[in-house]
Amino acid sequence: MSATLPERDPPWVMRTYSGHSSARASNALYRQNLARGQTGLSIAFDLPTQCGYDPDDPSAAGEVGKVGVPVAHLGHMRQLLDGIDPGVMNTSMTINATAPWLLGLYVANAEEQGTDLARLAGTTQNDIVKEYLSRGTYIFPPEASRRLTVDTIAWTLHTTPRWNPINVCSYHLQEAGATPVQELAYALATAVGVLDAVRDSGQVHRDEMGAVVGRISFFVNAGIRFVEEVCKMRAFTWLWDRITQERYGVADPKHRRFRYGVQVNSLNLTEQQPENNVQRIVLEALGVLLSRDARARALQLPAWNEALGLPRPWDQQWSLRIQQVLASETDLLEYPDIFGGSTVIEARTAELADAAMVELQDVLELGGAFSALDTIKARLVSSQAERTRRIESGDLTVVGVNTYTETAPSPLGAGTRSILLVDPATEAELVADVRAWRAGRDGDAVRAALDELRRVCASGENVMPATIALASAGGTTGEWAGALRQELGQYRAPTGVAGAARRPNRSSDGPSEPGRPSLAATAARVRAWPDGPPRLLVGKPGLDGHSNGAEQIAVAARDAGFEVVYQGIRLSPAEIAGAARDEDPDVIGLSILSGSHLQLVPEVLRLVRAARVEAPVVVGGIIPEEDRLTLLARGVARVYTPKDFELSRIMADLADLVEATRRG
Amino acid sequence: MSATLPERDPPWVMRTYSGHSSARASNALYRQNLARGQTGLSIAFDLPTQCGYDPDDPSAAGEVGKVGVPVAHLGHMRQLLDGIDPGVMNTSMTINATAPWLLGLYVANAEEQGTDLARLAGTTQNDIVKEYLSRGTYIFPPEASRRLTVDTIAWTLHTTPRWNPINVCSYHLQEAGATPVQELAYALATAVGVLDAVRDSGQVHRDEMGAVVGRISFFVNAGIRFVEEVCKMRAFTWLWDRITQERYGVADPKHRRFRYGVQVNSLNLTEQQPENNVQRIVLEALGVLLSRDARARALQLPAWNEALGLPRPWDQQWSLRIQQVLASETDLLEYPDIFGGSTVIEARTAELADAAMVELQDVLELGGAFSALDTIKARLVSSQAERTRRIESGDLTVVGVNTYTETAPSPLGAGTRSILLVDPATEAELVADVRAWRAGRDGDAVRAALDELRRVCASGENVMPATIALASAGGTTGEWAGALRQELGQYRAPTGVAGAARRPNRSSDGPSEPGRPSLAATAARVRAWPDGPPRLLVGKPGLDGHSNGAEQIAVAARDAGFEVVYQGIRLSPAEIAGAARDEDPDVIGLSILSGSHLQLVPEVLRLVRAARVEAPVVVGGIIPEEDRLTLLARGVARVYTPKDFELSRIMADLADLVEATRRG
Repeated sequence: MSATLPERDPPWVMRTYSGHSSARASNALYRQNLARGQTGLSIAFDLPTQCGYDPDDPSAAGEVGKVGVPVAHLGHMRQLLDGIDPGVMNTSMTINATAPWLLGLYVANAEEQGTDLARLAGTTQNDIVKEYLSRGTYIFPPEASRRLTVDTIAWTLHTTPRWNPINVCSYHLQEAGATPVQELAYALATAVGVLDAVRDSGQVHRDEMGAVVGRISFFVNAGIRFVEEVCKMRAFTWLWDRITQERYGVADPKHRRFRYGVQVNSLNLTEQQPENNVQRIVLEALGVLLSRDARARALQLPAWNEALGLPRPWDQQWSLRIQQVLASETDLLEYPDIFGGSTVIEARTAELADAAMVELQDVLELGGAFSALDTIKARLVSSQAERTRRIESGDLTVVGVNTYTETAPSPLGAGTRSILLVDPATEAELVADVRAWRAGRDGDAVRAALDELRRVCASGENVMPATIALASAGGTTGEWAGALRQELGQYRAPTGVAGAARRPNRSSDGPSEPGRPSLAATAARVRAWPDGPPRLLVGKPGLDGHSNGAEQIAVAARDAGFEVVYQGIRLSPAEIAGAARDEDPDVIGLSILSGSHLQLVPEVLRLVRAARVEAPVVVGGIIPEEDRLTLLARGVARVYTPKDFELSRIMADLADLVEATRRG
Repeated sequence: MSATLPERDPPWVMRTYSGHSSARASNALYRQNLARGQTGLSIAFDLPTQCGYDPDDPSAAGEVGKVGVPVAHLGHMRQLLDGIDPGVMNTSMTINATAPWLLGLYVANAEEQGTDLARLAGTTQNDIVKEYLSRGTYIFPPEASRRLTVDTIAWTLHTTPRWNPINVCSYHLQEAGATPVQELAYALATAVGVLDAVRDSGQVHRDEMGAVVGRISFFVNAGIRFVEEVCKMRAFTWLWDRITQERYGVADPKHRRFRYGVQVNSLNLTEQQPENNVQRIVLEALGVLLSRDARARALQLPAWNEALGLPRPWDQQWSLRIQQVLASETDLLEYPDIFGGSTVIEARTAELADAAMVELQDVLELGGAFSALDTIKARLVSSQAERTRRIESGDLTVVGVNTYTETAPSPLGAGTRSILLVDPATEAELVADVRAWRAGRDGDAVRAALDELRRVCASGENVMPATIALASAGGTTGEWAGALRQELGQYRAPTGVAGAARRPNRSSDGPSEPGRPSLAATAARVRAWPDGPPRLLVGKPGLDGHSNGAEQIAVAARDAGFEVVYQGIRLSPAEIAGAARDEDPDVIGLSILSGSHLQLVPEVLRLVRAARVEAPVVVGGIIPEEDRLTLLARGVARVYTPKDFELSRIMADLADLVEATRRG
């Protein structure tokens, strides 16, 4: 039978987004994953590395090695890639603000090994717009960040032609609430914003724009509504072909091909009955694999227990096995595009593409993605709030969360028994390590390299050569970022909360139920209080930039009649304590998704109480049951986890808490 | 957006194939499953019930309550459906040879409750052809069986018009090795064989054939090659429409609609890394759900640990949650047929339909499915042998079995820790129960009902009224089947082994590898033995009719130069011991998949040794590690499980064993 079929499509690159603790531990994990059949690497960096801090920086406290691997200097990159040939491996690095630096370390390591740079294959994520909008690990202001992106694109074009310098991420847009149309429009707006700047930079010849476009790749999300996702991917393919031809005059269809990798949706994964995440992950993979004409070139799947904490090797293996079964047991790769000619798919694709073009045009008229951050952010927060409300009202079904909640006991374990815990000694080891590294290197050479880096930053020359030189000389992540902070400045992104707050009587709030007053009911209740409405201070301590939870709490609290103070992500415990002292809150809510709650929350509590603020402190995040009990014992009033999806219930609870506290 | 879409397709009926231990225990399980959102029942009966034996019959020893629920009399049916309204519930009963009897018990129970029979909705599987070919729970010869099927169809047509009297099963054909074309052709041949008989029976008026056809349903398998499965289902739909119009003149398109339920493939589920079965089950469900024009009306999914033993409530819940996520979280039901107009799908569908028509025509020329059992069986055994050889050679990838075998330790547990074990006291309780039941009923009424049943059997009248009367009077499963055995005779189906044996030098056998001589190499080795080739007696003790494993062992052994004696399924330990005494085997291989190995194997061993046969006994089946050790301690020489997929290795191992014994 296979004789009558066309050539089998080669499988996509299979990766697992992973890294934790240390470069050595992560290297062992990578080798194990490769031995199990993984065909590419996807490096997760810890938050200090992503935000440009060394492990011994006070801002890094509690975050070292938590959500990814710490890479502070060339020694770490050597350890991380030990035994892995950079001339052969296809490596994806999820790195953005510090992308030039990590690429510099990757290149410096390859050069040490004598690898021809033209053979380097992989991707730096390097999409700063979605960091401002959703993920939070930005450092510099938009224009300076765009300049760094342009520099990496120009440098890789001429030096590492197989490298994808940017992976325009619609992934995090969907996580932040984007509808398919918004995901299409804002990702394309980002790409256009970057490509316009490349074209106008003077670093790339007009004739080279085809080659530039041919190296732009995308990093897409795939949600559970997989039929729509198939159409979204076909729309992406169609729109990209059209935009690159019309706007940049790219003549070669190969250069106009929409090339993309995928991490499927984590937004839909549930803490309740977490085994159901396995079927969600499989179904989410379909959207980006079913249509051969719009098939992903690389795929990484989250683990079933990602909503609980850090996955173990077995959990990661399972997600890899999902890919392997899809690629080698099913017949998917044996056929041409199974949707070619499908009237339903073609109609829906056209509908999405048309709507996305309208939204894209709107953003371009506002000056493009880099200028319209406020507007885009507010639209995303609104979309997310709408989604949250639909889950709470039951309009959107989530199995195990708002329906089918009854469950048999699971043998998969719960709490910290079903996740990986990072050794608490890791941070101290890294602090000692980076200090020893600094002591052991040629200090003059580093100083000279830093001076050169500052010079090219100021002059407008391409930063990559000076960055690679600093990497080779033994500079650190914190030093590279520190130099650029001096030269380029720092930035604080819009929260999108004000634009998304709505009048509390809107119908989608739904009626009150026994034990769950609606937001409107809570608003009516607290407005009648003699001492005025309750004041909520929302704080996001540490480096974690995943602000969806904090934003949705802030929006819901306003709708529930609270006065809300939310100053955005990445505040130090001292800054939060200062705000608590100045803003006189009735209740302080902390949001942490990076797993650093046991380090950061007690520190915030200590400083808040030291500032003589007695308001109760509540915490939300991915918090295992054992840790929840620890936090309560340390004086936290309430702990909310993804299980607490009913924001109206949380708000009623907070109102109760404030009322009890005011009564004293 | 939903405003622009057509009406949402209502979800299919969601079931879990379940039942074990006793009617009371199964009733508790059903109520729990229904509370978790299941929308229909699928009753699994134990082997004695399927084969027409009471729990105290010697043939039932070791099998009571093992693979399903024992239902020996009306009291059990009352317990089984306690609290479940037969006028509301949609009940599927996997029952074949004794289908008229179980339907009789179901009807008698409904009558007791005053339910209008016209409201009864559900299905009796009642497809005896696939029992002969694959599943093994037949009792009577083909013509007699067909008459019983015709009787249930005619009776339900006039009395329970919402009941599907037969569920033509392609399911077990695929499990037995059928290619998609064979699955299509043989299932349709079965349906034609039954419908021809209905038409010619005189029980149904010519005008009623449309209504008869409109109640025929199918029970289909869906394998992991889900694109092909989509096409197979579309081909079924198209062929059925054509056949029923052309052959039976059915005018109403609604009556010609291909209505089907599904249990997805168990054949592909693996004992190794069994968590991977979750993704297999999800992907297998796609084949029967993706195409709205050929979408299943009812679905039941196996549990991930089905290759290990009996699933627990949590395992069954997980499979139900897979269905719920598919139906209520994805957008699949929101669209018209997503393959309408697809050139790839339409071409493959036409290819399958054309080839199936050729194969169907071939079977019809051989006299139809009921006459061509030998030929069909041999073709299925050949297909299965080909599949087995392709897995062994690596042409067919099975993740965790012949590739990606390296694995992290699983927290899901292994051995008997991850399955449900039936309480060993169950059988004795059921024996006591059925004896008490017989003692407590009106013996004269039962005798009279049995006399009437025998009379209508002989006269050719419809057996259903007498069957229902016997059920109401308190007759037992063994009594009903015993009476029919007397009147209709018993049958032994072809094994298909001789037709499938092949010359040992065929290329697909593959080369020998270190530690794994090819079948041809083993054949060359044993042909040189001075005392002649080794003789293997293959025995299948107990009532389990799943003969694929035994058949494949027999085929491979012939290819490896063994002389093979295989007499088919359902032999008593005494019959196997008799064959061992008469056939002078060098090694005796027993195959058991029903979980009764701890009861049956020691008994066979005892009788074999009592017959002074000293040949080593080896066992194959679904055998947990703990039980493997027990069997070895009891004197079994080798235990093979689904993990041992390399038949060439097993054959070399058996040759070693024989050589050592002969030398001994």
